[in-house]
Amino acid sequence: MNNSIDDLATALAKLPGIGPRQAKRFVYFLLSRPGGERKQLADLVLALDKEVRQCGECMRFYNDRSGSICGYCGDSKRSDAELMLVEKDQDLAAIERAGTYKGRYFVLGGVLTLSGTGVIREKELVRAVEKRIKNGLKEIVLALSATSEGEHTVDRVRELLAPYRDQIKTSQLGRGLATGSELEYSDAETLRAALQNRKET
Amino acid sequence: MNNSIDDLATALAKLPGIGPRQAKRFVYFLLSRPGGERKQLADLVLALDKEVRQCGECMRFYNDRSGSICGYCGDSKRSDAELMLVEKDQDLAAIERAGTYKGRYFVLGGVLTLSGTGVIREKELVRAVEKRIKNGLKEIVLALSATSEGEHTVDRVRELLAPYRDQIKTSQLGRGLATGSELEYSDAETLRAALQNRKET
Amino acid sequence: MNNSIDDLATALAKLPGIGPRQAKRFVYFLLSRPGGERKQLADLVLALDKEVRQCGECMRFYNDRSGSICGYCGDSKRSDAELMLVEKDQDLAAIERAGTYKGRYFVLGGVLTLSGTGVIREKELVRAVEKRIKNGLKEIVLALSATSEGEHTVDRVRELLAPYRDQIKTSQLGRGLATGSELEYSDAETLRAALQNRKET
Amino acid sequence: MNNSIDDLATALAKLPGIGPRQAKRFVYFLLSRPGGERKQLADLVLALDKEVRQCGECMRFYNDRSGSICGYCGDSKRSDAELMLVEKDQDLAAIERAGTYKGRYFVLGGVLTLSGTGVIREKELVRAVEKRIKNGLKEIVLALSATSEGEHTVDRVRELLAPYRDQIKTSQLGRGLATGSELEYSDAETLRAALQNRKET
Repeated sequence: MNNSIDDLATALAKLPGIGPRQAKRFVYFLLSRPGGERKQLADLVLALDKEVRQCGECMRFYNDRSGSICGYCGDSKRSDAELMLVEKDQDLAAIERAGTYKGRYFVLGGVLTLSGTGVIREKELVRAVEKRIKNGLKEIVLALSATSEGEHTVDRVRELLAPYRDQIKTSQLGRGLATGSELEYSDAETLRAALQNRKET
Repeated sequence: MNNSIDDLATALAKLPGIGPRQAKRFVYFLLSRPGGERKQLADLVLALDKEVRQCGECMRFYNDRSGSICGYCGDSKRSDAELMLVEKDQDLAAIERAGTYKGRYFVLGGVLTLSGTGVIREKELVRAVEKRIKNGLKEIVLALSATSEGEHTVDRVRELLAPYRDQIKTSQLGRGLATGSELEYSDAETLRAALQNRKET
Repeated sequence: MNNSIDDLATALAKLPGIGPRQAKRFVYFLLSRPGGERKQLADLVLALDKEVRQCGECMRFYNDRSGSICGYCGDSKRSDAELMLVEKDQDLAAIERAGTYKGRYFVLGGVLTLSGTGVIREKELVRAVEKRIKNGLKEIVLALSATSEGEHTVDRVRELLAPYRDQIKTSQLGRGLATGSELEYSDAETLRAALQNRKET
Repeated sequence: MNNSIDDLATALAKLPGIGPRQAKRFVYFLLSRPGGERKQLADLVLALDKEVRQCGECMRFYNDRSGSICGYCGDSKRSDAELMLVEKDQDLAAIERAGTYKGRYFVLGGVLTLSGTGVIREKELVRAVEKRIKNGLKEIVLALSATSEGEHTVDRVRELLAPYRDQIKTSQLGRGLATGSELEYSDAETLRAALQNRKET
């Protein structure tokens, strides 16, 4: 006989950052709730397939099955001159919250690690760039995290973009003091960038 | 139009210890998986209603709909003389992993806090104790955590059990050095118990 | 030219748990204080040699140069029947804070690790035990931490005490739930001890 | 009778980040070392007064009693056109490790908090700026941490520098992604700065 408590715990333990013990906690929490909540959770999981689609242009997930491209890709008020490459949907959301970027996006879907693991959407990226070049693309903003994986991914993306170097410029997010950075604990690279990017006040 | 990405994130953020950001992470993780995995997760959540029932005796959740009491309550090899009260199903599982207790259980379903929040299964407890007294119950083991909530819950349980004081004895799990305890950082109460419970070697 | 800022930082970085960065912080903190405070700190460090001595019986450090044994060893109201072995002075202080132990002490001065490092006062221990046996010693309480180093040290101490096994009994601090222990996160050994040491209430 | 173990612990507990328990640990550690090490530590503390002086120009502590100004202030190869204001000596050291700044320094000696605590060297700053303006100062770099205290301190420093606004420009360290920053967890201000400071690659 299979054990649905253990089976659900095993499934939940696949969620990012969740170990077997917390997964078990989740199961008992769900058991302690009214049946309607479990039904609703199951329905919401299934609704992802019905109501969410992946944008054919930027590859992000969006919540509308009416068209084949997402709101950002279909918005005629956003600039076609800039394309920002981000690792994942949540990074795109963080940039949108910052509120100043008004160009297009492409979601790489992952990062490459130094040990050779990780996958990014290479074919889709090249296809998107080639299509956008015809539509006035001038700059690609590499908006990867300031981590070794981010830098390694930038290296690969620059290889992929090498053939288009004459037509478009590429840029990377600026380095400097992040909110909360203390000088004493900042590394030399951050401090050098912070000094170079210093702003007149 | 409702937004199933946000709605699922909201539902997942109710899981114990999960904030809005991690909940969003879970949603994008689920979106990144094959559709079959989402279907399986939804099915496993729904299976809780079909395959798990709450034991009418000890109140724990168990994975078998064939009878109205769980394996521990129905096991004739376990002793009816002892009843252990635990806060939650996971605590019962921890005691079972320890492997030496062979009596019965009752799951209180919560703890009472000093600020007056928290609920335990009072009526079910009294009913279970009265029934078990007729079947040879001799000792109730209060197996609550060594926390202020645990102690507060013990106080309330002892009030509930006061009428049966003449018929059954009550005991509490022993205090002492837990695995990993360092003397220097141990509080006076723990050290006094450790000294009193010292074992000849 | 030597650099007294760096030299002092190097010396302070030897203190337990202090890295080079925090040591540097200490130096600049000291520099920021009035000169009198630095003088006082230096004097207090030197006073250790003048005012603190190591007890010839229990090996603890104590703050009185008037006699060759410490207050606990010289206190005629404490029992000679019990001798508690602890790792270090702070552990002895923790036991004293607990307030119930009224026997004698011996400070081992360290623990032995599984990898073979660590030193304890073996010769001094044997000498102290032999002397105390003549004075009515009945029980040696091994009050080591509930860690692998603690257990390994207990093994060695028991070897050293083997010749006296017929004359004195040895005991170990009791195991169980320490203050703050939660059942769900307690290991099997702790739970078995807690169950075995359960107290009638 | 005073207790030199406790007195030294009290003195050590004033060190930044050290509580009474760790201070006690330090004392027993010192007691466990050869007497020569205690003597050396006391000597090194006293040597601060003999061998370290505070630079009359930048207010930093330096390890040379031969002159009244430090090596950075006396180095004719460093530029008089730039003056960097830092909170503390360790921040200055971090900038030096970064290796690209070749101007002068001034150590404020603290930060101002929103709750009104904290002190900076206001008079010394004004005096240093007035003197340096005569020697060709063109830019003051406010190199404070990207924290609320840092920003609050910047506000006060700008008030102090207001009279010189026509003669010198002031700048602040650039904001952006610090090493290790992940996009998903970066705040809007950091991302806006990172986007604005983006670098062509």
